[in-house]
Order: sequence, then structure tokens, then C-alpha cells
Amino acid sequence: MPLFDKPLAELREYRPERDEQPDFDAFWQRTLAEARDLPLEAEFTPYDAGLSVIDVYDVRFCGWGGHRIAGWFMLPAGTTEPLPTVVTYIGYGGGRGLPHDWLTLPAAGYATFIMDTRGQGSVNIPGDTPDPVGGASPQAPGFLTRGVLDPDDYYYRRVFTDAVRAVEAALTHPCADAGRVVVDGSSQGGGIAQAVAALYPGLLGAMIDVPFLTGFRRATELVDTMPYREIVTYLATHRDHEEQVFRTLSYFDGTNFAPRCTVPALFSVALMDATCPPSTVFGSYNHYAGPKEIRVWTYNQHEGGQTFQVRERLTWLRDLVKS
Amino acid sequence: MPLFDKPLAELREYRPERDEQPDFDAFWQRTLAEARDLPLEAEFTPYDAGLSVIDVYDVRFCGWGGHRIAGWFMLPAGTTEPLPTVVTYIGYGGGRGLPHDWLTLPAAGYATFIMDTRGQGSVNIPGDTPDPVGGASPQAPGFLTRGVLDPDDYYYRRVFTDAVRAVEAALTHPCADAGRVVVDGSSQGGGIAQAVAALYPGLLGAMIDVPFLTGFRRATELVDTMPYREIVTYLATHRDHEEQVFRTLSYFDGTNFAPRCTVPALFSVALMDATCPPSTVFGSYNHYAGPKEIRVWTYNQHEGGQTFQVRERLTWLRDLVKS
Amino acid sequence: MPLFDKPLAELREYRPERDEQPDFDAFWQRTLAEARDLPLEAEFTPYDAGLSVIDVYDVRFCGWGGHRIAGWFMLPAGTTEPLPTVVTYIGYGGGRGLPHDWLTLPAAGYATFIMDTRGQGSVNIPGDTPDPVGGASPQAPGFLTRGVLDPDDYYYRRVFTDAVRAVEAALTHPCADAGRVVVDGSSQGGGIAQAVAALYPGLLGAMIDVPFLTGFRRATELVDTMPYREIVTYLATHRDHEEQVFRTLSYFDGTNFAPRCTVPALFSVALMDATCPPSTVFGSYNHYAGPKEIRVWTYNQHEGGQTFQVRERLTWLRDLVKS
Amino acid sequence: MPLFDKPLAELREYRPERDEQPDFDAFWQRTLAEARDLPLEAEFTPYDAGLSVIDVYDVRFCGWGGHRIAGWFMLPAGTTEPLPTVVTYIGYGGGRGLPHDWLTLPAAGYATFIMDTRGQGSVNIPGDTPDPVGGASPQAPGFLTRGVLDPDDYYYRRVFTDAVRAVEAALTHPCADAGRVVVDGSSQGGGIAQAVAALYPGLLGAMIDVPFLTGFRRATELVDTMPYREIVTYLATHRDHEEQVFRTLSYFDGTNFAPRCTVPALFSVALMDATCPPSTVFGSYNHYAGPKEIRVWTYNQHEGGQTFQVRERLTWLRDLVKS
Amino acid sequence: MPLFDKPLAELREYRPERDEQPDFDAFWQRTLAEARDLPLEAEFTPYDAGLSVIDVYDVRFCGWGGHRIAGWFMLPAGTTEPLPTVVTYIGYGGGRGLPHDWLTLPAAGYATFIMDTRGQGSVNIPGDTPDPVGGASPQAPGFLTRGVLDPDDYYYRRVFTDAVRAVEAALTHPCADAGRVVVDGSSQGGGIAQAVAALYPGLLGAMIDVPFLTGFRRATELVDTMPYREIVTYLATHRDHEEQVFRTLSYFDGTNFAPRCTVPALFSVALMDATCPPSTVFGSYNHYAGPKEIRVWTYNQHEGGQTFQVRERLTWLRDLVKS
Amino acid sequence: MPLFDKPLAELREYRPERDEQPDFDAFWQRTLAEARDLPLEAEFTPYDAGLSVIDVYDVRFCGWGGHRIAGWFMLPAGTTEPLPTVVTYIGYGGGRGLPHDWLTLPAAGYATFIMDTRGQGSVNIPGDTPDPVGGASPQAPGFLTRGVLDPDDYYYRRVFTDAVRAVEAALTHPCADAGRVVVDGSSQGGGIAQAVAALYPGLLGAMIDVPFLTGFRRATELVDTMPYREIVTYLATHRDHEEQVFRTLSYFDGTNFAPRCTVPALFSVALMDATCPPSTVFGSYNHYAGPKEIRVWTYNQHEGGQTFQVRERLTWLRDLVKS
Repeated sequence: MPLFDKPLAELREYRPERDEQPDFDAFWQRTLAEARDLPLEAEFTPYDAGLSVIDVYDVRFCGWGGHRIAGWFMLPAGTTEPLPTVVTYIGYGGGRGLPHDWLTLPAAGYATFIMDTRGQGSVNIPGDTPDPVGGASPQAPGFLTRGVLDPDDYYYRRVFTDAVRAVEAALTHPCADAGRVVVDGSSQGGGIAQAVAALYPGLLGAMIDVPFLTGFRRATELVDTMPYREIVTYLATHRDHEEQVFRTLSYFDGTNFAPRCTVPALFSVALMDATCPPSTVFGSYNHYAGPKEIRVWTYNQHEGGQTFQVRERLTWLRDLVKS
Repeated sequence: MPLFDKPLAELREYRPERDEQPDFDAFWQRTLAEARDLPLEAEFTPYDAGLSVIDVYDVRFCGWGGHRIAGWFMLPAGTTEPLPTVVTYIGYGGGRGLPHDWLTLPAAGYATFIMDTRGQGSVNIPGDTPDPVGGASPQAPGFLTRGVLDPDDYYYRRVFTDAVRAVEAALTHPCADAGRVVVDGSSQGGGIAQAVAALYPGLLGAMIDVPFLTGFRRATELVDTMPYREIVTYLATHRDHEEQVFRTLSYFDGTNFAPRCTVPALFSVALMDATCPPSTVFGSYNHYAGPKEIRVWTYNQHEGGQTFQVRERLTWLRDLVKS
Repeated sequence: MPLFDKPLAELREYRPERDEQPDFDAFWQRTLAEARDLPLEAEFTPYDAGLSVIDVYDVRFCGWGGHRIAGWFMLPAGTTEPLPTVVTYIGYGGGRGLPHDWLTLPAAGYATFIMDTRGQGSVNIPGDTPDPVGGASPQAPGFLTRGVLDPDDYYYRRVFTDAVRAVEAALTHPCADAGRVVVDGSSQGGGIAQAVAALYPGLLGAMIDVPFLTGFRRATELVDTMPYREIVTYLATHRDHEEQVFRTLSYFDGTNFAPRCTVPALFSVALMDATCPPSTVFGSYNHYAGPKEIRVWTYNQHEGGQTFQVRERLTWLRDLVKS
Repeated sequence: MPLFDKPLAELREYRPERDEQPDFDAFWQRTLAEARDLPLEAEFTPYDAGLSVIDVYDVRFCGWGGHRIAGWFMLPAGTTEPLPTVVTYIGYGGGRGLPHDWLTLPAAGYATFIMDTRGQGSVNIPGDTPDPVGGASPQAPGFLTRGVLDPDDYYYRRVFTDAVRAVEAALTHPCADAGRVVVDGSSQGGGIAQAVAALYPGLLGAMIDVPFLTGFRRATELVDTMPYREIVTYLATHRDHEEQVFRTLSYFDGTNFAPRCTVPALFSVALMDATCPPSTVFGSYNHYAGPKEIRVWTYNQHEGGQTFQVRERLTWLRDLVKS
Repeated sequence: MPLFDKPLAELREYRPERDEQPDFDAFWQRTLAEARDLPLEAEFTPYDAGLSVIDVYDVRFCGWGGHRIAGWFMLPAGTTEPLPTVVTYIGYGGGRGLPHDWLTLPAAGYATFIMDTRGQGSVNIPGDTPDPVGGASPQAPGFLTRGVLDPDDYYYRRVFTDAVRAVEAALTHPCADAGRVVVDGSSQGGGIAQAVAALYPGLLGAMIDVPFLTGFRRATELVDTMPYREIVTYLATHRDHEEQVFRTLSYFDGTNFAPRCTVPALFSVALMDATCPPSTVFGSYNHYAGPKEIRVWTYNQHEGGQTFQVRERLTWLRDLVKS
Repeated sequence: MPLFDKPLAELREYRPERDEQPDFDAFWQRTLAEARDLPLEAEFTPYDAGLSVIDVYDVRFCGWGGHRIAGWFMLPAGTTEPLPTVVTYIGYGGGRGLPHDWLTLPAAGYATFIMDTRGQGSVNIPGDTPDPVGGASPQAPGFLTRGVLDPDDYYYRRVFTDAVRAVEAALTHPCADAGRVVVDGSSQGGGIAQAVAALYPGLLGAMIDVPFLTGFRRATELVDTMPYREIVTYLATHRDHEEQVFRTLSYFDGTNFAPRCTVPALFSVALMDATCPPSTVFGSYNHYAGPKEIRVWTYNQHEGGQTFQVRERLTWLRDLVKS
């Protein structure tokens, strides 16, 4: 059934019980504190991307464990003053690609920082950042179950930490305006952006499109699609680890970050999205504690609003920055 | 088999017999002459796309039959001098979308004209241009068999005519440099670009990625994929029209335009491309009469070189324009 | 789930809200009046189909816009008196084929008129009738979204008008008994037959098998199959046209024709039919205002009752004609 | 690859080695002699099929082992003189259905006898004839491996015997002209028809469309489709029975019946037919020892020529009967 | 939806209405009495399976109709005293294979009797036992509809009778302890085991994993998978036999055997099992009249608990035998 | 096409060019020397697997990098003397599971050592061994491209080293006979076994079923199946790393280990195996330098000979050990 999830009216009211461990905040404070004990060492190297109206820098900085994380920093050519800055996180599987893959935001006048996702970037869009950590337990193919038996060992602990550090790295550039930083992403990128919105105080806003990494348990029961199916594959094998796995995932679930977010957010959701099902998106959205709007795309799958959503984002962002 | 077509060494030598009607040139001269008898009426309306470094115009002009064709015209903000100009044609199914879908070339400093493909633009990327002609014969779903029993009635006669007129429309803008026009496109867009390269004298070059609309008969025998399968569906039904159909298609086959092209061209081909199989691409390439290069992507399907090919194009284009 | 729709007990009671524009009747009166302003020009040409017990005529008449529509007229060999007459409309994609494709009704003693569906007839069964109108907006592959932004421009406005004119054309033949005309069709043909039953007064009955073109919105939300998916494809692209599209479709929705029908009808429905889901069929059936029966096939998909339903039809028709 | 088999020019010359046991003829003589030792007991019961121009009889006769086999006998209403008679065999899976499923030949003036295929008739089109023999070895789902370890026990020994007896049963009806009998069938029916053409002397002709049951070994190596895949499933399990299985099949392979046929035949073949691949059809055709013609459908799969082939058959049959 | 059936809490309470004929018990008494009128003739032939710690016998005995049924009898090497004995039935399609396919139970110290399933054993795992009965009605491919119009003629009447006789055959071996017999099976084997638990008094227990052959009607409405789909295929063709088919199946439905079972049972169920859906398993389990436990595997399909379930079985069996 | 690869006669002669780096041997000598610099620390803990005739030990030892690798050691209950010993490696994705998953060889009288494959064991069969190394480059999902840019960093460097150490670990047990060690595996396990046969001198033999990890480049061009498709996915993204990737893989390709093997080997191959295509298997087999036999399964896919091959293995092994 194309509209396989709850009807829209129910989705708008859907506030699932949250499954949260008592040390959720302590876990993240400890995690970020450890990361900040290491130097950031952000480097911005000018890069000839063949673009006459955009300046591009090839970036490296230290993320979790001091590992070097790649990125791009792009802004209107010749910028010398601080600009409102968007930090963008990437969808599952892909990497940072090349600068011409990320032109919209700099062409609209924003300083834009694209963070590579460690380990990923070998499916469709190339990345340049390894994840040197293999983890302390076996894993299903992909990244969703790497280290999934222990929150300290879990893959996304490293990624979310990288993502917070990416904001800090961006702000070392003189053209990034620390008072006007927006985090941004689609799918996995949206999940990361929401986590950063909760973990990094002082942002201006967040753009969270068809977010992944939220409502893990419901997703595994509702859809049989990649990448949530990685978890199903793992649990169908390690039948004795169900509770342990969902305990780990609770530290990374958007539903638990949402009530900790206070900055304005623009969400989007697609009602026929079998990859990130609408109830998991509304599960985050309805718990989101800041000012919020959501664009609903009725007849779309995980592609969501695509070019229409880009237009929505540009408009929303322009208003946010002006305000 | 992923490498389902001929081996690369054979592909490089593959020059298929061409199936060409004696009045091929006359057909196109007559067609274009008729189109040029109608006024072009190109209009450029400034459009707020929310992009600070790019100027955008919403364009309309008269294509085949005087029908209004939509497009975008984009260039670096504040341009006042004639720039080298790229006219881009679109892949099958999609439409012109929104300006932020086409940022690479203007961001690289080129005036860029995007032509909507009549009738199309209701699959993934929206278009704004109808094809008011339904044709004089029944058709399979899609556009490949619309009017396919008669070259005069065939859908692509209208599209290729629109495409020639699009170049002429672009050149009515003061920032388009008539001496430095390059046609460009991927898949269907590549097929159109190659036709224009043959039909419009005086171009500077052509960029033709994984072209469609070339080697029709071989394609229908070699791959069972959309959109070439539209022709198979038609012929599996109208079993008595095989020769008539391929006679019509011969007027639109890239293999017959290629030897009429003399401007420098950059092609690309993917060896695992089951949509536009490599032998059909090399069939055009090896007959192409101008200076030429081809980028070969071994492990790719119809996506071809993607971001890597964009980089190749920017480099090739920069060199071409400089020369 | 094979029984994916509502349970049968609920289906029998299911009377969906109808979405009908105030000018629904005016729209159709105006449409038919315009068509009738043009001459009908029905021609019946004897045709050698190699059948010794059936006489066959190759038919042409003027449908919407005066366009020539093809058909077959068949009746027991040597008939000279008026016979009860069945006008049959065709399922989606196919055309009128050859006379031996339509033997059941003439072999059972009925004058039978088969109407080609304009534009269609290039998928499996060949047709001979073009739709010369391409429409005033882009369209997804197929016919369901051709001209879908405007009821006046919509494809099925032309088809339903052709279908009313087909009845009138049939009745110009001396062996067709104007007082005993039954309309008939399966899938798309059933949808057309129901429309004609509402639009053409004075019929004797209607046979409507697993009808298509009814309950458009519910169908797009419930099944992900062709051809209803054409609408989903369109709306997934033209995300801003949802209400406009469903407004157009409301003029063509069987649910709105059903309460305007008063002649006896035999419906059929298949409970595992994912092409024309059972609730959309019952949505029409339960609103149908004439005497009615429905055959329910529990374990069937869109093929419905097939040879069993043919037997039901022959029996029902014999009783109807006798009464 | 749609044209996955040999090119047409090679197909026309393709005469595979035949794998034939020395007692092939003795096997069939013994088999038929045993069957003829049992009474035929053909019964023709008038049947009301609701058809005014065709007379219908529900038939039963004794096939292999004296088992009762069902059939239909149909002819133009009121026939009293012997007519040329077609005995039709059915495609795999289906049964005799209802009389209105078989109207073409009687409507064209032929007495027509439809033989049910024992055991089959529970996939799409219902049958009425069981196969009481389960066989002396395990079998894969379907009928192709029932009793496949021994020619005497093999399922098609019973079917082919039934088919010869069906001709004899038809000829007990006074309206069947013993001097003008044609056997006929498509797919499995074509395979049966060819066997009967070899086993029953004195026929007038044979119509063999896209025949199945010919070139077994090549088919299992060339296509991965049902029903030939039943043999692959069996051999993938019973890995030690390969030679025994193909020895059995050699008694039933059309390639071995073909050189024993002398009556005129009309074949058809589809070049994209992955169910009965073209080389297996040409393998029979090129060994066929009588006058022969073949219709080649280039762009079709197993549906072959469909309505076009029906027209070919009617024409060929009319000429044959006249001659 | 992976969790496509009822939620677990509802499943635990789900006790469907049973559809049982009044002569259910009489039918089975008569059936078994007839079988026991024939001699059992169990033979145990020592077999060299190349296993040093397990003794193996190739077994034959007379099942329904006196037909010879194959099996394996295996036990720890050198056993001379009666051991607790497990009679294992096999999943759908497969046969008894070779002794090394069945090592777990004999390696754990049990005498183990593996019964071949007549007719089956040509899909993946080879069998050696034919079903000589073809049945009195046509059938869909497979075994689920062989003789399905009549309980006396139905395939599983023969199989379940074989299964009861297999217990009796096992007990003719001096190392099988008649007071400690457990029946066992997975999928089809589980369905058979449950039937035997109802039909053969005096067992010690039953192990019933993800059982098939229970809840037939619900299964056909809920899942579209093999092998239940065989019934759907049959009913989609023989549309007039629905009630007759389900009447036959009611004599073989686990839901009707369950309340007749009194020995301790270990069930298992997988919540994502679309082959034997969880509600059909719980339908049996909740009606099961003996002491019972069920292992629930949340994230598994029809593979169920696999190696984990084997461990559960060994533990449960050890405790049962001790008690 | 089921027989999609070369014909058997060609396969038997197929000796592909080998692509081998000059430091191949040095690479492996250095790798193993480094591993042997670390302590082995093999531990054998008795484990209650509920099996009365088999003794089981839960094993740990240090593999590459000193990482702890899990395994099972199993042998006939009560063994006290050294036995011929088989070291078994596991197929891709799975882990060591539970002891009852590995009964055949110990039941046949062999000491059997099962090595867990690091990182794997979360698809179907659970494993207990992590791969703590994430690698120095991004990777596609799975293990085939983990560290694939550098032989020193490549995943299988660690696995093959573990595998050599597993032999050494097995030999620390007093019941393992150092003079009679056979390595063994299917698919990935076969690839590992062949590598060990080349790297560890003094074995008695090798059993290599349908081996994976051999003929990498040909496999990626010939089949589009997992897991070789992981490499295609990687190269389709990292289009600039083709030569670097195949250079790395050459150090791990069975084709390069084969000529370094001198012990007797039993191979198997399946001619319809699209996972490990037959030409890649014969590519190894024909280069294999020791005495060798190969079992060819014509109608099988990657399951190969299954229970039949087990029988072949037991027989071959018995003869080998006797000799």
C-alpha cells in the first residue's frame, strides 16, 4: 500500500513513548568532553574546482578519536566578511564527492561546510574519510550495526561527535559567522543535524529532511528496506541481543534528541517513504521542542520534496537569517 | 553479465553500417526551414531563484509549430558582456525543474540555457512545456513511439527542431556569445545535442554523455530496459510495422547525425550501461566526424561518470573556450 | 496481503463520500452537445475475417472533435433483422485487434460493436485510432495524465465522448435495435461503460467488469500498480498540482457517474485485485442507482472471473433481453 | 539480452544432433497398441453454452490406461455433413475451460475438438480431467518430472497417447471428416500436435505454434524459466540422474518426432521467447520432414504472433482444406 | 511490513473459530484402521554413511495403501539398549537426503527415525519415495491440491497415515523405546508431527517448529507465498470449488488436531514469517490441549530460530526424557 | 542463461593469465612472520553442547595483530589419541554458530577445528569475533573493500593470517595429529583454505568447494551478484582506483595461491553458479600445482553438490587419511 503508515491526521498527533536511558545526557557530555580534549586542527586548503563564482576549500579537521575528517568549505567568490553558515551532513552511503555537487547553498550566499561521513562514501558518491575503528563485535554489512552492542563502541557515537566538531571547525574560518550557524541534512544527514541541534548550543536553526536514525524499533517492524534492514539482519542472526541492541540505539535515536532541541527547525516528510517511514519522522517532529515547521509531500517516497524542498529551504533560511 | 556488450577493444573499432534514407538531409532542411518561417519570440523574464551569485531568467520561445517552449537562462550575477554559452538538453522523462537544479555551468562562468523537453517533465523532475501534438497513430506509453509511423509526424522531429531553435533563442540574449556556443546533454540530452551539432552550423563544441537515441535497432535487440523497450512494446504489438518504424527512426538516429558533425566533441560511455548500451554509443562516436574524445567508465551503469564526468566536462570546456 | 482491501462485509456497505463539482452535469451536457454538432459519418465496410458464421464490418465514425474512430461491427451471418446490440469498450492499453478476438457476443446472437480507444492499442493488442491531441500540459507516460490539469483538456473527455458517439454510430446500422442496447466493458472498458450508462439515456443495461477509472484518490493511496500509478508518478513530480488533478479527475470518476445510472447492471469484482482494488469497485457499485447485481471472485486478481464471468454475462444478458 | 538466442540466419540453418534411442518407434508402437486394446467409448453430450451460431458437445473418451478424458466438440450450428476437423491441444497448466474460450475455429467453419490435458487445468483455465497416476519416483512441482526416470512411467507417455486417441474419438462423430483432420496447438499443445503428426498416419496437416517439449537439454541450459526449469529443479536435486532423465525425455522430444512427420505444417516462433527458445523451435522445424512454413515474430516473447498468428492460421488452413 | 501479522500480545490470545466436520474423528479412525489392515513390513538395512560414531540403517516400511516408504534410522554407534526415540518429519519439497543431513539428534544420544515424504524430495534435498496416486481431480503444481476435492483422495491423508505408520515402524527396532517416543518436525514436518501427536496415543512429546498445514483459509488470505499460494492458484482457477476445498482441508488442519493433543509440546514461531504466518501458528498453539511452551523469534522469517532453536530443542528434550 | 559461463570443455582447459606482483611471496612471509612474533595463546574450554557422542571445546587464539579469534574444536567423545584433523573455514557472512552446526566431520571420526571469520557472523549464522580494524579508506558495505587500497591494510590479510594461525592453534591440542591436517571450506571458506594450503607447509590435503576469492577481475565483469558486487559498487564510485584495487586484490587471489599449493586437493564447482562463476573456480583449479580432483555439478548454482558433495568429501578424506 503506498500510504502504508498511519493517516496524516494521526501522524500529526503521534508522540511515541521515548525509550531513554538515565545517563543519556551524561553519555554525550562525556563523549564530547573527551573529543574536545584532543586538538581540532582545522585546515582550509584552497581548491580549484573550476568554479568562477564560488571559492572552495578542501578541509580537514580532527573528529572523534582525533581521526582526520574531510570536508569542503564553499562560499561566494571573494567573500571577506562573516556570512551565515550552513553545516551540511550527508545521506547514508555517500561521501563528500566534489564541490560542484554542493552548489545550492553557496550560490544562495551562504558559507557552507560539507562534512564527510567517516567510513562511508563508496556507494554512488565518493568519500575520503576512513573509520579506523572496526568495533568490538561482529557486524552486518553497512554501518548501522558496527559496534552496536555498546554505546561507547557504536559507530554513530563517532559520527555525531565528528558532526559537533565540524561546527567547531567551520567556525575557525573567518568568513563563518558564529552567531548564524544552521545545521542541515537529508536522511542520515537529517538525523545527524538533529543530534547536533541537541548537542551543540547556540545554533541559529536546523533543516532536517526526511530524517533517518529516529524511531529505530518502529522502523524495523514497519519497513523491510535498507538501511534499517541492516538492524533486522543483525537481530535475525543475533537473536539473543535484541534488548542490548535497542538499548545502544536509544542513545542515538532522534526521538531522544528532539526534546533537547530548542532552535527553529524546518522538517520535511514524505508519506510514501518506505525508507524513513513518516511515523518515525513525526515521532521526532512531534517531540521537537523548538519552533518548527514541516513540509509534507504526499505522493513521494524517500526522495521527498527534492527540488521543491530545496526552494522551501532557501525561503525558510532567508527568513531565518533575516530575523 | 555486467559487461554484457562487446569488449572495449572491439567497441573502439565498432563502426556499424548506417541505415540512412536518401532524403535525410532534405528532410531536415525542410523541417528547419518550416520552423524558421515562424517567429522565434524569445522572452527572458528575470526570476527570483533565491541565488545571490547567479542571475536567472525564465525563458519562453517558439519551437516547432510555433509552440511555446520553456527554459531557464542563467549566468554569473551582474554579467554584462557576452559569455561563452552552453545550451543544455535534458534526459528522458524529466523537465527543466527549478534553476538551482542547474548550477554547475553558470557557477563555472558560462551563460547557460536549459531547454525544457516538450511533453516530458512528469517523471521525477517537473517540466512546464506540453506537446500539443498527439500524433497520427496509436502509441505505446512514453514518447518514443508517438507518431513513429511517419518521420513528419514523429515526436523527435518536434524536439530536435525545438533544440535548434533553442540555440537561436539563447543567442538573442546580449550575454550569449554567438561565436562560442556549446551544446550539451546527457542520455536523451546527449542525443539531442548530437543532432543539433549536425543541424546547426557554427557551434564551438558539443558535450555528449552516455547518449540515447542512437543505434535504435541494435538497442532493441540488446537490452530489455526502458526507454528503448517502448519501441519493443510497440513492435511486439504492431508486428506488421517493423520496417516502417525503423525507417522513421533512421531520420533521428545519432549514427546518422554523427558523420555530419565537425565541431570538437567530448563523449562519455559506461561499459555496464544497460540503458544506452556502449556499442550504441561507440556506434555514434566512431562515426563522429569532428575532433573527439571519449571518457570510458568501466564499472558504471547509465549513471556514467557522474561527478567525475562533471569535472572532465569543466576541464574540457575550459580548454575549448580558451583555444 | 492477498486480501489487502477491506473485508467483504465492509465492502458491501462501503459508500464513500463523493467529490463532485457543481457543474458536473453541465460539463458533460456541453461536451456532448459540442460533439453532436459535428457529423457522425458512421461507415460500415464489409470485412473478410475468414469467419463463416459471423458477418464482420470494419467501422469508422466521428468521435470527439470529429476525429475518426475505428471499430468492428459483428453479428450472426445473414442477419437482416434488428438484434439486441452490445457496445463493448476495451481495457487499458489494448486496441480493437482483429475480429476473431471478439467472438463471444456475436456467437451468442448479439450484434456487437467494438470501439477502439483513441491513442491506445500499442500494448499487446493493436489498435488503429490515434489521439491527435497531445494536451496543454506535460504528462507522465500513458494516458491517465494527458491533459489532466483541465477537465476540458483531459484525455478521457475525448474517450467518453467517443463512447457515447459509438452507441449512436452502432444504431445507424439497420441490424442494431435501438431499444435493446447494452454497454459493456472490463477494466477501463467497464469504466467507460458506466460513464455511457450515465450519459446516454435509453439503454437496456450495462455490464461492468472489474471497472477502472473509479475512486481515483483512494486507488492512488491503496495500490502501487499500473495504471493508477501513472497518477502517482505525475503527482510525485508535480507536487503542487494535487488538488487541481483530483478536481479534473472528479469529472471522470465512476463514483460520480454511478448515481446517475438507472439501467440494470451486472458488475464483477475480484477481492485480490491490486489493479482496480475492490473498494473502488464497490464504491461505484454501492452508489449505482439502477437495479444491480455483482459477482464476487474471492481468490482472483485483476483477471476477475474470466471464463466464469463470461458465462455469467451470457446468462444475465439472455435474461435481460428476454425480459 | 532480448535476442538472447542464435541470430535468425543461424536459426534457419540450425539442425541439432538428435539424441534418439533405438527402440523409439517400438516404444510408441507398443504404447499405442496397448491403448487401442482398451475400448474408446467416446461420448458426445449436447451442451448449452449459450451460443446461438455454434453447436457444442461435452465429450468424454478413454485415453491411456482407459482413463476418461474430457473435451469439447464444437461446430457451426445445424451442421449435418462431415466438415474438415481440427483437434486442438492445450498449453501447459490450463484446461479445457468453457466452450466460449474456443470459438475461432468453429466460427470459421471447422469442426473442432478440444482435448483436456490430464492432471492439468488448475492454473488460470480450469480443466476437468485428472491424471490418476502419481508415478514411481519423486517429482518436482508440475508435470515435467512426473515419472521421469522411466519412459514407461513418464507423464507425457499418457498425454501423447490420449492425444492420439482424441483424434480417433473425434472421428467417431458423423460431422468429422476423417480425410480432413488437422492437429493443432500452441506451446505444450504444439508439442503434442507434433507428436500426433508423427504417431497418427493420415492427417491432413498440423499447426504448431511456439512449441514446447522439444530440445529439452538445450532448453535447460539456455533459459531459466518455467516450465523447463522444472527439469533443472529436479536435476539440481537428483544430481545422479542426469543421463537417465534425458534418456527418458528423448522419447518425447519434438526433435525426434519431427523427422517422422510428413504432413504439411505451419509453425510459428518468437525470437524473444525465453519460455520456448527459438533454437529449440527451429531444432524441430529444421528436422520436420513434411512441407512446412514458419512465421517468425521478431519482437515477441512466448505470446508469439497472437491475433496475427490466428489470422495466419485461418488463411493457411483455408488453403490447406481447399487443396 | 515486516511485522505484517497481529501484534504479539494479540497473537498470544488468538483462538480462531475452528471449522471441523462432525466425522473428523471417524474419518481418521477409518483411515488408520484401513492402513493397519495392511502389513507394516519394516526393514532396517545397515548403511555405510562413513560416520564412525553413528550407526545408520536404511529403512523401508509400508505406509498408506501398502506403499513402500523410505527412511533413515540412526543412533549412537554400538547402542544395544532401547533409547528415547525421535521420529522426524521433513519440510515441504525436500526428501530424506543422506544420513549426514540428520546428525544432531543421534549425536545427542537419541534413536532417530527420519521419514521420507512421499512424492516430494525433488527440490533441494533428494527423496526416494514416490506417491503412486495421482488423484481424482486436476491439481496445481505441487502437492497441496492433489486430490483436494475429496478428503479420501487428498494427498495428506496418505502422508499423515505414513507418519503414524512411521512411528510404528520405528518401534519395531529393538533400540527404540516405545515408552519414550517424541515426534518432531519443522514447517511441513511440524504440521505432520502435530497430526501424529493427535492420532497416535502414547507419545512422550512433540516438537513443532514454525508449523505449516494449519489455518489454511487465513493463510491464503494473509500471505502470497509458496506453498500456501498453491491453494490460491487452484481456487483462482476452480472458482466454484472454494467451499469444497476448505471442507477437505479441515480434515488436515492443525487447528483441528491441536485440541486432540495431550502430550507436552515445544512450539516455535517467527513473527516475520510470511510462509507460515504467526497467527496460523498461534491458532494451533492456543488450541493445543497438552502442556506447551513456545519460543518466539521476533526478527525472523520462516527460518525461525535455526541454530538457536536447535539448542532449545536439545534442552527441552533432555528435560522431557529425564522427567 | 543458466549455463552463462564458458562450456565445460573450455573450462577444463581454461588457464587465465595470472596478475601477480613481484613481492607476493615476500608480502606473505613478512605478514606471517609479524603474526608469529605475537603469542598464540590457544585456549580450549570444554563446552556442553548437549551432544553425547561428540566432545566440544570453545576455543580462542590470537590471530593477526594478536586479536582473539573464536572457534570450536570437536572430536569423537572420549578421544585421547591424536586424530587426523580438519580445519574448516566459513562461508561469507556467517559465523561459527553453535557446535551442532558442524557435526559431519567429527561424527566421521575427525578432530575438527572451526575458525570464526573476524567481523563476520551477523548474516544468518552468528559469529563471536570482531574485526577491530576499520581500515584506512572508506568502504562499501560488507568486507570485500575494507582497506582495499593497500595490501597491508586489506581485510583478508588479517583473515588469511588468522587462518594460518588457526592451524597452529589446532595443533596445540593433544588430539590433533600434526602430520595429518587437512584444510577445508566452501565458498569463502574454500578461498581461505586454498590460501592456507599455499602458506602453511606440511598439510595433508585441502578440500575446496565452490571457492570464492579467486579471479576477482573476471568475476566483477561476469556476474552481478553479491558479494563480488561489493567490488563493483566500490569501483563504480571510486572510479579512479581501479588499478590500485586490483593490485591489492592480486595478493589475495586464489589464482595466485594455486600454483604454490602442492598437497592433494578435492575441488568442486557448479556450472550454474552465478556467485562464484565456474571459470573463476577452474582458473584456480587449472593452476593448482598439487594432485587434484574436481567434482562438477552441472545443474547447480552456488549450493553446489550439497549433501552429495559431503559424501564425496567423506570418501575422498577417508582415502587420503588411509594413504
